[in-house]
Order: sequence, then structure tokens, then C-alpha cells
Amino acid sequence: MRQAKYSKNQLQRYPVYLKYLIGLREEGAVYVSSTRIGQALGYSEEQVRKDLQAVSEEGGRPRKGRKVESLIETLEAFLGYREADSAILIGAGSLGSALLRYPSFRDMGLDIKAAFDVDPRKIGLRVGDVPVYPMKDLERLARGLDARIAIVCTPAFAAQSSAEMAVRAGCRGIWSFAPVHLVLPKGVVLEEVNLASSLAVLAHRLDSDAMRS
Amino acid sequence: MRQAKYSKNQLQRYPVYLKYLIGLREEGAVYVSSTRIGQALGYSEEQVRKDLQAVSEEGGRPRKGRKVESLIETLEAFLGYREADSAILIGAGSLGSALLRYPSFRDMGLDIKAAFDVDPRKIGLRVGDVPVYPMKDLERLARGLDARIAIVCTPAFAAQSSAEMAVRAGCRGIWSFAPVHLVLPKGVVLEEVNLASSLAVLAHRLDSDAMRS
Repeated sequence: MRQAKYSKNQLQRYPVYLKYLIGLREEGAVYVSSTRIGQALGYSEEQVRKDLQAVSEEGGRPRKGRKVESLIETLEAFLGYREADSAILIGAGSLGSALLRYPSFRDMGLDIKAAFDVDPRKIGLRVGDVPVYPMKDLERLARGLDARIAIVCTPAFAAQSSAEMAVRAGCRGIWSFAPVHLVLPKGVVLEEVNLASSLAVLAHRLDSDAMRS
Repeated sequence: MRQAKYSKNQLQRYPVYLKYLIGLREEGAVYVSSTRIGQALGYSEEQVRKDLQAVSEEGGRPRKGRKVESLIETLEAFLGYREADSAILIGAGSLGSALLRYPSFRDMGLDIKAAFDVDPRKIGLRVGDVPVYPMKDLERLARGLDARIAIVCTPAFAAQSSAEMAVRAGCRGIWSFAPVHLVLPKGVVLEEVNLASSLAVLAHRLDSDAMRS
């Protein structure tokens, strides 16, 4: 395996390529060029070529481009979609439940095996086929399930302690949707999806554009 | 108003500060220092001071720090949380419905007035108090509601055309949760939350860490 360094922006593009290529395959396409991918996705041809070269030894043919099927296989292998990561979810509220019902996670190599919540009315239910357990069972169950990733969907005030509990249970990756910034020990990988922050960026740009015009 | 340029990372931190300060106010705190904010959120004191100075003329007192209440007001005004942006949501599936039920958007200055879906079984329902209309009414209704932002939660294949429809209806900001990259006309502000991309970053970092250890 190559030891190239990938930037965050670059890593974020690979699932976008993959989604597009799967669509192409469904349309019956056999070959695709970097130019075509770039045009469809709004990236430069240069960028597409560099990104694809970074994950695949195999080049494209001068005219036809690359084989769609082998690109899909390469990207799925690179993104780890073929071997699922075992995961738990903490906080089965509205956002947490939506993620439990999200059909594509399995395709993306994420296998959510258990959810945890403080609400006694939710304990014992299944949300999108995932059973909901009480928080007190988290450490024991997560360890038993060999969970590698914890998805944190709790309210802000509970997020830090929930993430710490998951780390104690052996999770090495925290995917947090809580509207706060978490501080975790070294060696734990943290990826935050903060809707408030994303909205702030959008609203600020809208206002700046409005002022200029 | 200042015309300072804010980086994306910086903009993303302001809602995090705000959330933390609202928690402090609930605990009865009157003053807060940059040091304390930094320690709580895992940012350097330097960073916090710079970020706050960029949005507020008023400095802190040497010992006590800044007034929590006036910082909250400053940040809410800066983030535009006081004047709500009128918005529509396209695609009331599991993720879209979760966003319609998300209680905090109103506090963040986002007022979702109507949702649109292709599923006839959803038309006429209310999800989290928001009425669901058929797609054919989108342009007319969005224009009538003076919607400024469209939240796109459709499957990948429908995202580009849905966003274009919203733009034709007068929306200047597109907040997309679809797992594709959209290409929109100049002057339209696009902010994408791609769960597949976020997961790819997390999984890749986990694998890289595992290889090093």
C-alpha cells in the first residue's frame, strides 16, 4: 500500500468520484476519461487525474480513459468499503435515528451494531434494525462488539462524556454530530460534522455577497 | 460593520463559542476570559482572543475578561441568529425529516417554511410543523415565501436538478446534504455536508493510525 499523504479535501472527493462512477456503470459506460469526470463534477481535469493517480497504479488509455469497473473497485478498496467497520451510535434522538435509518452506511463500510440512549422509552426498541440499549451497558457491549467507531448524536452537554465513554470502551474513531467541539486523548481520531458551523459559513457568505452586490 | 475576511475554519468556530457561552450563562457566569474559553474548547488562548477581537470592538477587562452576556449578543448578531433566513427543504426522507424536526434551527436563524417531496404519500403532511408540498409547486411557493436558502436532502440523482429549481425560484444559498458535488451558477452560495466524505476522512485516518502503531 502506498504511504502517500492525502489532504482532507482530497479524501472528501473520493466518495464523490465513487458515487458518480457507480451511476455511470448503471448507465452502461465501460470507459471514462478524467476530462469527463471533471466536467460532470465541477473539478478540473488536472485535479481528477492527480486524485486518481494517487490511489491507483494503473493509468488510463490515451483515448478511452480508464475502465469504470476497475476504478470503482480501486476506490472501494481505498475507502475501505469492502471490510465494514463495526460501530455504535450514542443518542437516538431525531438526528441519531435518521442516521440509524440511513441505508447507505453499510455500502460505505460502516456497520452500526448498537445504539445507546438515556430515554427509557427507547430502550429495547429497534431503530432501522439497530437495537437501542441503556447508556449503562455501553462500555460492556461496545467492547463485546469490538466497536471501532462511535457516532455521537447527543445534545451538546452530553457529547464530551459520551465520547470519553466510547473511548474507554475501545473505540478509536469518534464521528461527532453534536454542536460542540470535543477534546479527546491523542491517538483517537475525531471527525466532527457541526450543522451550526456549516450553516454559519453559508449564512455569512450569503450576507457578504449581498453586501457586495 | 467590519469588512474583515473570515476563514472558513474561523467561521465554523463562532457557533461553538456561542454554544459554550450560553452554557456558561445558564451556570450563572458573568465574566469569562479567553484562556478559560480556550481550555474548555481545546483552542489556544491566542486563537480565541483573535477570533473574538475580529467580531467585537469591545475588549475584555485585564483580570475578569469579557462579559458573557455581551459576547453572546455580539456573536448572535454576527451569526445573523436574530433575523431569521426564510428557507425551504427539498427531500423529506429520513435525513430531511430529521432536519425538519431539528429544534435548534430556529435559534440559529433558519426558518424552514415549506418542504417538498416527490412521494405522494408525504404530500399534505406536516413534518416537525413544516408542511410538505409536491415538487411541482416548488418554484411558485418558494418565490411566494421569499425563500433565501434551500436545504437539499434528495438522493444523489435528484440533487442537481432540485438545487437548480431552487435557484430559479430565487434561493441564493444552497445547503446540500446529498452525497454528490453540485455545480451551480456564480452568485449562488453552496455549502455541502457530505456524510460519505466525512466518513471517508475518519476511516482513512483510523487506518493510517493503525498502520503506524
